[in-house]
This record gives sequence, C-alpha cells and structure tokens, in this order.
Amino acid sequence: MNAPNPLPRRQFASDNYAGVIPEVWEALEHARFGHAPAYGDDPWTARASDLLRQFFETDCEVYFVFNGTAANSLALASLCNSYHSVICHALAHVETDECGAPEFFSNGTKVLLADGANGKIDPDSVESIVNRRKDIHYPKPRVLSVTQATEMGTVYQPDELAALCDVAKRHDLRVHLDGARLSNALASLGKAPADVTWRLGIDVLCFGGTKIGMPVGEAVIFFDHDLANEFEYRCKQSGQLASKMRFLSAPWIGLLETNAWLKHAKNANACAAALGKAVESIEGLSLLAPVEANACFVHLPENVAAGLRERGWKFYNFIGSGGARFMCSWDTSMDDVNALIDDLRELTK
Amino acid sequence: MNAPNPLPRRQFASDNYAGVIPEVWEALEHARFGHAPAYGDDPWTARASDLLRQFFETDCEVYFVFNGTAANSLALASLCNSYHSVICHALAHVETDECGAPEFFSNGTKVLLADGANGKIDPDSVESIVNRRKDIHYPKPRVLSVTQATEMGTVYQPDELAALCDVAKRHDLRVHLDGARLSNALASLGKAPADVTWRLGIDVLCFGGTKIGMPVGEAVIFFDHDLANEFEYRCKQSGQLASKMRFLSAPWIGLLETNAWLKHAKNANACAAALGKAVESIEGLSLLAPVEANACFVHLPENVAAGLRERGWKFYNFIGSGGARFMCSWDTSMDDVNALIDDLRELTK
Amino acid sequence: MNAPNPLPRRQFASDNYAGVIPEVWEALEHARFGHAPAYGDDPWTARASDLLRQFFETDCEVYFVFNGTAANSLALASLCNSYHSVICHALAHVETDECGAPEFFSNGTKVLLADGANGKIDPDSVESIVNRRKDIHYPKPRVLSVTQATEMGTVYQPDELAALCDVAKRHDLRVHLDGARLSNALASLGKAPADVTWRLGIDVLCFGGTKIGMPVGEAVIFFDHDLANEFEYRCKQSGQLASKMRFLSAPWIGLLETNAWLKHAKNANACAAALGKAVESIEGLSLLAPVEANACFVHLPENVAAGLRERGWKFYNFIGSGGARFMCSWDTSMDDVNALIDDLRELTK
Amino acid sequence: MNAPNPLPRRQFASDNYAGVIPEVWEALEHARFGHAPAYGDDPWTARASDLLRQFFETDCEVYFVFNGTAANSLALASLCNSYHSVICHALAHVETDECGAPEFFSNGTKVLLADGANGKIDPDSVESIVNRRKDIHYPKPRVLSVTQATEMGTVYQPDELAALCDVAKRHDLRVHLDGARLSNALASLGKAPADVTWRLGIDVLCFGGTKIGMPVGEAVIFFDHDLANEFEYRCKQSGQLASKMRFLSAPWIGLLETNAWLKHAKNANACAAALGKAVESIEGLSLLAPVEANACFVHLPENVAAGLRERGWKFYNFIGSGGARFMCSWDTSMDDVNALIDDLRELTK
Repeated sequence: MNAPNPLPRRQFASDNYAGVIPEVWEALEHARFGHAPAYGDDPWTARASDLLRQFFETDCEVYFVFNGTAANSLALASLCNSYHSVICHALAHVETDECGAPEFFSNGTKVLLADGANGKIDPDSVESIVNRRKDIHYPKPRVLSVTQATEMGTVYQPDELAALCDVAKRHDLRVHLDGARLSNALASLGKAPADVTWRLGIDVLCFGGTKIGMPVGEAVIFFDHDLANEFEYRCKQSGQLASKMRFLSAPWIGLLETNAWLKHAKNANACAAALGKAVESIEGLSLLAPVEANACFVHLPENVAAGLRERGWKFYNFIGSGGARFMCSWDTSMDDVNALIDDLRELTK
Repeated sequence: MNAPNPLPRRQFASDNYAGVIPEVWEALEHARFGHAPAYGDDPWTARASDLLRQFFETDCEVYFVFNGTAANSLALASLCNSYHSVICHALAHVETDECGAPEFFSNGTKVLLADGANGKIDPDSVESIVNRRKDIHYPKPRVLSVTQATEMGTVYQPDELAALCDVAKRHDLRVHLDGARLSNALASLGKAPADVTWRLGIDVLCFGGTKIGMPVGEAVIFFDHDLANEFEYRCKQSGQLASKMRFLSAPWIGLLETNAWLKHAKNANACAAALGKAVESIEGLSLLAPVEANACFVHLPENVAAGLRERGWKFYNFIGSGGARFMCSWDTSMDDVNALIDDLRELTK
Repeated sequence: MNAPNPLPRRQFASDNYAGVIPEVWEALEHARFGHAPAYGDDPWTARASDLLRQFFETDCEVYFVFNGTAANSLALASLCNSYHSVICHALAHVETDECGAPEFFSNGTKVLLADGANGKIDPDSVESIVNRRKDIHYPKPRVLSVTQATEMGTVYQPDELAALCDVAKRHDLRVHLDGARLSNALASLGKAPADVTWRLGIDVLCFGGTKIGMPVGEAVIFFDHDLANEFEYRCKQSGQLASKMRFLSAPWIGLLETNAWLKHAKNANACAAALGKAVESIEGLSLLAPVEANACFVHLPENVAAGLRERGWKFYNFIGSGGARFMCSWDTSMDDVNALIDDLRELTK
Repeated sequence: MNAPNPLPRRQFASDNYAGVIPEVWEALEHARFGHAPAYGDDPWTARASDLLRQFFETDCEVYFVFNGTAANSLALASLCNSYHSVICHALAHVETDECGAPEFFSNGTKVLLADGANGKIDPDSVESIVNRRKDIHYPKPRVLSVTQATEMGTVYQPDELAALCDVAKRHDLRVHLDGARLSNALASLGKAPADVTWRLGIDVLCFGGTKIGMPVGEAVIFFDHDLANEFEYRCKQSGQLASKMRFLSAPWIGLLETNAWLKHAKNANACAAALGKAVESIEGLSLLAPVEANACFVHLPENVAAGLRERGWKFYNFIGSGGARFMCSWDTSMDDVNALIDDLRELTK
C-alpha cells in the first residue's frame, strides 16, 4: 500500500489529530499476536486494570470503552435516571460536543448549564441551579459533571475540586469527572492522582486515552463499587463492549508502565505554556484564559487569524467568541511552537 | 513491558479470540504517524471508503464504527422507529448476543423471531410473522435482518437471499444484512460481492472487520443513499464516531487492497471444512449443520466434550442443544485442526 | 347535541366497550364543580389513596395514571434497567397488546416469554428462562410480570401466586402484577385483597379501573415504598401526570366506598360462568380454558362463528387458535347471555 | 359519598384548578351509557374529529391523547429524531414544565432556548440558534415549537406567527404549535382558526382541552398528512391510546358544537383584561406583559403578595422574577376579579 500522506504539521487544531505514542504502539504490538479470550477476560485487560488501580491507589472498578462520548454518557447514565438532570459547565464537552449523547444514553436526562470563569464551574452556580426548581415538573439534579483539564485549558486546583464535591454532596449529587485530558491536568498539578480524584469525592472518572496518544479507547473508573453495579451490561447493550478487548486495554499498559503518559503530557503542556508566554509578550494579542494544560486560547485579531490560515496553520475558532484555540499534542514539538510564534509576531507587526 | 502470554492454541471458541492479520497491521503502522483531521476527514478514511465502493461496484455510503453490536443496532435504528419490529432468525446475533442493543438504540423496537433450518430464515416464516398481526397493538414489522454467514456456519445461496428480499419487499420491509462473517461467506460463495448483496435487494450491510482479523471496527454500508440520511449524527450521538477515525478505516485498506480478506477467509473456511469432513467420518459424531463457512457445529457425546476440555481444547457449547461449536479463525492452522481431529478420534474410540 | 348512537348490545368483544358504572359517575359529578389544586394535591386524590390503602390493609404508595399500558410500562420501568428483561406469559398483555410499550418506557428492556397452561405462568418455565443465560450478552431477568385475572380468563389461586413469588425471590426478580381485571379476580377468589397480593410477595400492582367501569384511569400501587422512589417524576416525564388529577382519582372513591367494584365484577363473572356452563352443555362446542373470571374462551366451529357474526354478535377471534373470546362487562346482562346461548344452540344444531 | 370540599375560590393559581364546563359535561353524559368499540372506532370520536376538521376548514389528521405534556412530546417526536433539536422560547412549557418529556419521548432530542420579549420568540433568535452550529457534534435543529397563547399570557399576531413560520421554513424546520391555551388565543385574535394556524405554516398543533374546561384530554392535529404517518402506533406505544376513547373525544363535541369554547375563553380573557386594567391604575403595581389572553403577570411588591396570600388568594410566583401570575379560568367570575382588585387596592395603599 502507498500510504496516503498524513497532514503536514503546522497543526494546533486538536490533540485528536495526533497519532499513537511509541510506548502505546509497542504495547499493541505485543497484543496483536496469538489468541486471547474475548470481552475482557484476557491478561492484558487484567494487567491494565491493575495498573490503573495502582495508579489511583485504590481498588476501583475499571472498564474500557471506545471513545470519550460513550465513556461520559455511560458513566452519567449509570448515575441517573431519565427524569434527572446533569449539571455541567456551559462549555463542557458533554453539552457542546456530544450531539446529545448524554440525553440519548440516559433516555432523556436534561443537561443544565452552570457558569464560571475560565471554563471552571462556580460552586455558587451549582447551588443556584439546584435551588431554582424543586418540583416534579422539572428534571431533578442528580449529577455534577466536572471536566479536568477544562475545555478552556485550565486546571482545577484540589481545593476548587473539593469545593465542587462539597456542594454536590450537600445536595445529593454524584460527581462525574470528564478526564478526556486528565493526563495533562495531572502533569500540570504534580499531585498524586488519588489526591485529585476520589479522595476529594469524585465518584466516577472517564480517563481519556485517545487525546494523550492512544489510537482509540478510554477508561471508565468507578471509585464507588456500588455505582458500577451491572455496568458491564450497560456497556454491552450500548455497543461499547469490545470483543477483542486487549486492543483497548493493552495501550494503557504502554501508557502507565513506563509513565509515558506523564512524559508526553508534560511535552504538550510545555508547548502550550511556551506559546502562551509568547502570546502575552506580543502586542495586539492576549490570552483568553490562563494556560494550565495543553491548550492556549488567544484573542486574535481577524487579520492575524486569516494570515495564519493563509500560511497553513490549523486551529479552531473558539466557540462564539472571536478567539482562537491552539491545542498542543503529545508530539507537538517546540519547533512547531516557535514557528507559530514567529508567524504571530510577523502578522501582528 | 513483559507481555502477558496469549492463550495457547487448541482454541476453537471464537474467531474473535484471534489477533490481527499482518496486512491489517501493516496498514495500521502506516496510519500511526503524523497528524490527520479527526472524525473521518482524513485520507485513510477516504481511501478505505473508495475501496469498499469498488469492492461492491457501487456508489454506496460507508461508515466505520467500533463493533458489530453497534453496527447492527445503528443500522436497524436507521431503518425503523421505536414502534416497529425487526424480524430475524431465532439464532441471530441481534437476538441472542447483543443484550438488547437493537431495542436500546431504537428505543424499544421489538425483535420478532423467524424459524428456518440450519440458521437460515425460511421466507414462509417471515410471511407468517408479518400476517400474524396487523393491528396497532403490536409493533409493525419494518425490517428483515439476515445474517450471512449464519450463526450456524451456513451460507445463504443467492437464490435464498433473493427469496428473502422478495418477501421483504412485498411487505414493505427493509433488508439488513448482518455480515459479521461476510468475508467467510463471500469466500465460500465465490461470487462478486455486489451479486450477493445489493443486486439482490439488501438495503444496508454491516460488514464485519473484527472477526476477519482487525483489532476493532466494522463498516456500515448503505446501498440506498436515502436511508443513510443523517446517519453520521446517529453515530455521533451514540458514541460511535471515532475521533482518530483513521485507526478504524486504515485496516480496511489492508484487508481490501491486497485481497487479504479472501486469503484469510479461505484459510478459516478450509480449516472448518476439514474438521467437518473428519467429523462425518468419525462414528459417534455428527454434524448439526452443513459446514459452509468457518464454523463447524458438532453433535458431541458428553464424555467426548469433557475429554476435549480436559486436554485443553476451547470451544462453545451450542446454545440449548448439547452440541458444540468449533469456530476457525483467520490464523487457525491445519495443524490445530488435525490435532483436534486426532483427539476426537481417540475420545470416540 | 344529538348523541351519536352507542353500539347496540350483542357485544362480547371487550369489557372496554362498556360505559361508566353509576357509582363512578356519581363520584365524577361531585368532582366536576369548583376548583382544586392540580397534579394530585386535591382532596379526592387523598381520599382515593386512603381508600386503596384500606382496601389493601397496608400503607402502600398510590399513583393514578391514564391507562393500563402506561401503568404496566411505568411500573416495569421502575423495577428494571434497559439491559434487564421482564418475564411474563406468552399471552400476557405486556407482550401481545402494548405495541412495545414496556420496551419503550424502559428504553430497551426485553420481554421474555414463559409457558404455562390456561394463561398461567408455570414456575418451572420461569426457572428455566432464568437459568438459560447467565452471561452479559443477554438481558438479565429482573422482573416477573403476572396477570390476574389472566388473559385466558383464569384466576391464579393464592398458592399458585405464592409459588411464582417464591421462584421470583429465589432469583432476585421483583414481582409485578398486571391487575387490569383484578376486580374480577378478587370477586372470583373471595379473599382479602392483601392476602392475594403483597402478603404473597407482589411488589407492584397495576390495578385496573377502565375495564371495571371507569371512563379512564388505573392505579399503580407500590407495596414496597423504596421501589416507589421518584415514581412521580417518572409519571410526569412520560406524560402520565394528570393536571386535573381528581378526575382520575374520584372514580376510585365511587368504586371502593360502596363496594361497587365487587357488585359489578360479580355480575360480569356470573355472566361468563353462565355462558361457560351452557357452552359445556352444547355439543360441538368446548371451553378452551376454565371460566374463572369474566371471560369465556370457546372452541367454535367456523360456521358457528360466522353465523354469530351474521346475527350481529361481536366477539374476538382468539389469537392464533381458531377459538373465540367472549368477554363480559360490568353491565352485561343475563338477557344478553341467554340470547347468545340461544343463538349458539341454534347454530350448532 | 360525602364529597370532599373543593377549593374555595379566591383562586388565580392556574386554569387547571377549574372543573368541567357544562357543555362538556353534557357531552360526557351522552357518552357514558351503552357500549362502543374501543380505541377510537366509535361514533363520538368520528364526530369530534369531523368537528375539528370543520373548525380548521381542512382535512387534517386528528388524534386524542390524555394530556398536554404527552401531546407536545408525541408531536415533537413525530417531527424529529433523537439527534435533532427543538427550538422553543426559554419560558415554553416544553422546556420549563414537562420534566424532560420531549427528551424522553424522542430518546434524547435537545431543547434549545430562544429569546424574545413577553414570552414570544424573536425570529432573529431562531436564526442565530440555527446558524450557531452546523457540525455533527451538536444536535441539528429540526423543529420550531411555538406556544399560543404564550406562557406570558401574550398572543402572537398573525404576522408574528408568519414571520416565525418563515424563518422555520427557510431552515427546514417544522413548526409545532403548543396550543394548551389556543382557545384563549383564538378568542383574543378573533380570526378564523385556519388563518392563524396551517395557513401560516403550522405543521402540527396540540390543541388544549384541559385548560379550557375538559376533565382530561388534548387533541393532536396534523395539518400535513405525511407527518401523521403511523402516529397511532406512536400513541399506542407510549401509553396514550385510550381504550374508551369516547371519553376523550366526546368533550370536544361539547366544546365545538355550540361554540362553548369561545364563550368560556372570552370570559376568562375578559377577567384577565379587567384585572390587568385595574393593575395599571394602581400605584405601586405594574404589568410584566400585556394582557392578551387569560393571564395577568403583575409586578407585585413583596408585602402585597404576602398580604394577598394571607387573605387566602392563590396565585403563582412567576419563575425567577419576583412577579406574580394571575390566571383566569373558564369559570372565573368578575366577582372574583373585583374582590381581588379591591384587596390589591387596599394592600397597596
């Protein structure tokens, strides 16, 4: 086969444009040979699950599913009924980018939108949503869904997460963490994973594999065993139980065994940080949010944006704001970043 | 990493215990590097779609999803509403092995069970189901779902499929083909794919990738463009739109470009045929169905079954019949088969 | 207004062809005047709920919904998840006459069919269904749904119900009672309602109002308070919370306060019994099931059936059997029955 | 039976606190006797359907369902798929008071909120919602749902409805009219029903029966026959097909045959108008929206509100605004209104 050419770099559109990190590929290569029982009863899945339990220092329940939309929707569905509601930030992926998947998997659950600066939920906003309606004519809030790192590239500090878990518990809400970019958040925080998840009160975590460099796959992790009751049936019925499960689980071995996740997350974060620092130093540009993970949101004059696109740079307009999102991947290089910075400087002159 | 050991052979439990065929792996390796737009807007997906259109000699609509349960359920959901019903064989995967996924994706669609020898639907049975109820108090039949190769390892001949399509069209039923093992069926039939699918009246095909040797992934193929309307939204909402789509599409390039599917399907079929032939020659054993694809269903005395398991052979009891299913994979070797035959001969002495 | 003429009698098609019993009408007339808070916070609803608690001699949770399909489906949905299954008799209304409503309300729950003579579930059949599959690829049995009186017009004796509850509890199944014709069953049994429902292990009861002579409305009664958790939300979301609730609840006051249900159920049962007795005495006719409530199932030669229809008699062919169902209503008169018997005698001569 | 006492008047909480208008009751009394075929195959249903066709001067498809939540949700479900979205005003009943029913019946359809003064949708807001997102990661707008009279008691003028239908058609949206209080709107407009519904482009209408004085029941009216395809199955499956349908349809005969709807709607509107006029004349009070139907929204100082409640007046706080809603019913009397006005004057002195 003549391989179709991959996209040339100059790419900051999304971390899901990137390929597979070498350690993950190596793990997949180990898995490709021979026969193994299907549906997760194989040694790779056992090993990957154990590594995740070690990673989080607790005997959690681990499930491997295909993508982040499914991971989030299945987790939410396991936490609520159709007449409940899920509270999340107005910019959260479950609201803005899953085409109603949470509503579909839960058969009608409503998503209620909280406010908060820089993509972080303000606990008062949660409080106010919960108190706004208490009658049966409106879906009853049952879950608080938090995204870490946020859609704005910011990272909740432990005390911020603790405050959210606190307001949740006070109102009998369960707490779901959308960790599509948890690796980047962990690299940014430099804390033990347990200390910024279940020890703060997170009930269920969707740990992202794709964006940190797996070809496909996410892990759904229940820190509360009871909540995981019959979750395997839920996965199966919704088309999220892989028959050749080892190809969803083996990559986690590659990610975790040698701390590859950390190395690559740090690289992506460092690229974003460098870009952010440069942006702050360029007259006419400004940051839309602090750069705390692998994304950099920039207020970009229209002509600069057009100029960048003309020169082949890929990035997203930020939803509804005239800004731009530059997302760094595990394999973004400082050369890419410097070339971008050079073009930014030129275009703003 | 020290790779966990894969299952030793002596394995005829399922073709989804097998790993990845070399040609598919090679295609994946081409895809792992570099950046590419997400959600299918990449050159691998374009190429794989084109190859499938060439394969079926028609300008069909092609979608890549994660697994067979999702492929079937999404296809069925696109063909019917919640108050409709789907007619399939009582042994069909959509009935027996998808944990109510078709009902879930379609929000309540009922699955009605047709009869027929050797896992093949008898057209009269379809007729009788359609005519049994015509009132609004029972779900209205809207889809006929046919499996090729069947769950009994048999293969519909073109005239048999034509007869089913005919009864379907007469009653305004759309026709779905569950082709989880279509490669094996095509290898068995030796016909052009077009001649045993859309030219006979198949509306939508779920073409299996996993069982023929991909790590993950199936293709949903609409021969009728109108039926594919907004199918991408349906995939997205149900968690079946891969962000790094190239890892679902590239394997098809590997399968189709060099006819790898055919080589490997032929091997699996030949293994099953050899086993079937031997079974017929062994006193005390008999076939439960003709061996026409990669499965061999055997009436096995209990002590023989126990003896095989003792010697480490893996195979499934056949649902509700006291028989046994021996499933051959793309990488089953004639040595495996012969060793099994030897043990069968010994145990039946 | 010139009232359109109602159907002339000679009607044994269904008890839902009948009008409203006088005691119910009187209760509705009391309710039609004045203002009352909506959604059940009114004195009629409180009174009807109390009467039902007295009726069942227990502090049960009571909800009033619009029809039997909704009552059953909501009750089942509160007992199971989408990946569960409900076991019922192959002739049960939830299977044969609700157009997939249980599947719809529960978002995909599968209905599994048990056998048993005369429309009664054989406990061994339940056992066998539960044991047939224990893997996650098939919906997990979670509810046993029993119909009293059955669709064949028979009535479970207390020990029969106890045996079913017993097998259910052994397998962690909850027990739902479809009591669309519970009044007729109770009139037949002559037992205290508590003794043939919750004291035997019934968890949730759908108590039929329409067929015993209300214009519209059924009661869903949870004997286990925990199972009723948030059921009011479920009703609201599925369009089953009446705003002017008093018009669903007041009829129950009319039914229960003066034992009107019993008087009218006895009349319907007596009519069916008289018809059954006559059928047994007529050569060429035979009963398809014992007559124990208000229905009489008769094996009817085709020419007799045709003759009856010619003379204007209304009745249903019995699903798939060549038999006929004669259903008696609260206002069927012995004159109707005798006229039918006369015609049966003449036509079989 | 000793009737529980109905609520004493001094009631402006809701028009669904009211009882049954005499003409409707009379029609029900005609229907209560005798037998009639079930599920709508009866003369009352035929007559009521014909009257509605005459009312709208077109051969529309008519269905009778139990309540407004179901009517709206079923209508919307027939117009869209799970991955679509419905645009409505932020104050619309389908958003604020149906507990996620539209999402439930449609298996996940998202409700998107448009702006506009006085409860009326601004066409520009629709335009902006449609244009905001065009990608498959967000539910695709498919229906515009308009409420007439609005939740703020205002009434769309024909040109306003026409402008909304126009923006809808331009963007391939179907138009649903929530007419829970359509009678009041029609009485206010003084136009032919056809001229303010289908002739402007309304596709499906939910015509409210309960709030204008039926005990239970709404009509779903499809002006476009194709959209009604198989709607009877949808009703059946969702528990909205009444067996004794005549009790849902006969009231419409009472409403329409003698123009009772108009008489009673005019009375309610006149009461609201009188109240509104008085409010404008009282210092310290002001209207929150023009009074155009049977509701009057008043900015009420807290002490006045408290004073009213102390004197036994019932009314709702208006969602999130510190205002009050006074809703007039078909049987609200001018004496009620004058007594309320007197108390308002006293309390504001």
